[in-house]
Amino acid sequence: MKAVYFDGKKALFKADYPKPAALLEKGESLIRILVSAVCNTDKEILKGYKPDFKGVMGHEFVGIVEESDDKTLLGKRVVGELNDGCGHCLYCQTGRERHCPDRRCIGIANADGCFAQYMVWKNRLLHVIDDTIATEKAIFTEPLAAALEIPTQVHIKPDMPIAVIGDGRLSLMVTQVLALSGACITVIGKHKQKLSLFESYANTTTQAEGSYEIVVDATGSASGFDTAKALVRKGGTIVLKSTYAGQLSVNMSDMVVNEITITGSRCGPFPPALNLLKRGLISLPEITLYPLEAFEEAFEANVFKAGFLISQ
Amino acid sequence: MKAVYFDGKKALFKADYPKPAALLEKGESLIRILVSAVCNTDKEILKGYKPDFKGVMGHEFVGIVEESDDKTLLGKRVVGELNDGCGHCLYCQTGRERHCPDRRCIGIANADGCFAQYMVWKNRLLHVIDDTIATEKAIFTEPLAAALEIPTQVHIKPDMPIAVIGDGRLSLMVTQVLALSGACITVIGKHKQKLSLFESYANTTTQAEGSYEIVVDATGSASGFDTAKALVRKGGTIVLKSTYAGQLSVNMSDMVVNEITITGSRCGPFPPALNLLKRGLISLPEITLYPLEAFEEAFEANVFKAGFLISQ
Repeated sequence: MKAVYFDGKKALFKADYPKPAALLEKGESLIRILVSAVCNTDKEILKGYKPDFKGVMGHEFVGIVEESDDKTLLGKRVVGELNDGCGHCLYCQTGRERHCPDRRCIGIANADGCFAQYMVWKNRLLHVIDDTIATEKAIFTEPLAAALEIPTQVHIKPDMPIAVIGDGRLSLMVTQVLALSGACITVIGKHKQKLSLFESYANTTTQAEGSYEIVVDATGSASGFDTAKALVRKGGTIVLKSTYAGQLSVNMSDMVVNEITITGSRCGPFPPALNLLKRGLISLPEITLYPLEAFEEAFEANVFKAGFLISQ
Repeated sequence: MKAVYFDGKKALFKADYPKPAALLEKGESLIRILVSAVCNTDKEILKGYKPDFKGVMGHEFVGIVEESDDKTLLGKRVVGELNDGCGHCLYCQTGRERHCPDRRCIGIANADGCFAQYMVWKNRLLHVIDDTIATEKAIFTEPLAAALEIPTQVHIKPDMPIAVIGDGRLSLMVTQVLALSGACITVIGKHKQKLSLFESYANTTTQAEGSYEIVVDATGSASGFDTAKALVRKGGTIVLKSTYAGQLSVNMSDMVVNEITITGSRCGPFPPALNLLKRGLISLPEITLYPLEAFEEAFEANVFKAGFLISQ
């Protein structure tokens, strides 16, 4: 089958990667991938964020279950959670499978991902997509779930002023989720044209000023943290959504003196994301789809969201 | 002017109640009432919930500011918060004016309310209504704000199962606010027809079964608490939204053994309510409007929401 493979250093197109087989007795499904999407994390992998990973890239997908020991999944259109924990450790046994130290993570750690014609994954990590949600919308389930991780971790009070730094894809999800609380959200970005997408549910500005109870760094880059630090109120919370290669130098005494809470935030829950998509409450941008062969073009595309049209 | 007056025991229509005058140097406005609405609390006052109160009834209104020392309010359509604190006590100085022990509360405590042609109220408690929100929608700001008090008090996580008990007006607001988190909400009611109003954003049932992390009693009656107790998970939270006359007998040892949190919840923040109304995110029922003279009919009306059409 066709696949985009990461060899530990760079991405390669493989025309003849072996088609995987599901271990049906182990609760797995074989999924035919319809569409998959490029995430910033994929680009960070190319920059060295996960040097130990070798395998098919990609973790955002919509596919159809072709083989499964769970008959209710057969023929169903599904999205899938990324993290497959060991099931036995402290984290798996306390509702934190996504933090299992031995977890496999499609396209990121010890598991082939979805930039391919087929993928195998655990039944219990798959979620059936309601028929009313188009595939081009459902492909946003994973980033929307990641946005929903913020209210899952941090108490978002509707009467709090909140800032989101960044005007990209992740910010678009985060801002919409937070705005559904009724809270006034201010989006701070660099690009007036991108910011215009936020205007129906948030205040937008290119000036990083004011003070906020909660500041979300959704820039995807190290620079967002400094801005967040300047904007957060004493006693407030900075939520970090960006994963990037490299270190950040932080004066932690400032954090102590000002009693700032810093919360790292990664993957989130899929069911509420599917609930919001079904109700049409999230405005989604267009995804620009490429063939797998054009993976370099997709990774470098200057579009809101790039992905792969794999089969229909 | 015309007004509906509570004499400490019963409601009376007054054709010649004195028109109030705003003390402009004290930050007050004179408001011409367009529409006001009957709340369950008004009915509880008639049953003896506030025996010390004498005055014009009513606390949910939309009006136009006719006189004010805040010139930005003049001629503006406004809604108003209920509670006017002393400004000096512990509660007023720690962001909890709504709990000031000496607060005045329109139509409830030491302040004439809005079942009248005119009302005087503090500028700082008034909120200008966006032109895009119709008066018949804006009249729901106060109950919607009361619903928004729940996520202001309790951390609603999008991946939590939540139950709302009651299928009336308050439940309609509460359920919609909570469903915007993406969480699966189950509404438990007695009336299949009323429950049908909830179906586009919640699961509905007439059977009080299952278990939930958070259970909201929005029944407006004492019976809701027993149901909530039966449904809440050990370690979970019961949110009480109902105010009613009379005592409730509770086995608090059960609450201790099962580590249940009980949170009383009353008035909430207006700005997020106006944000959600402006975005059209809340489905509102019809309000049935009566003349002030027909106040008895309005109080007893078997409609989703009754109110008074006072001027246009």
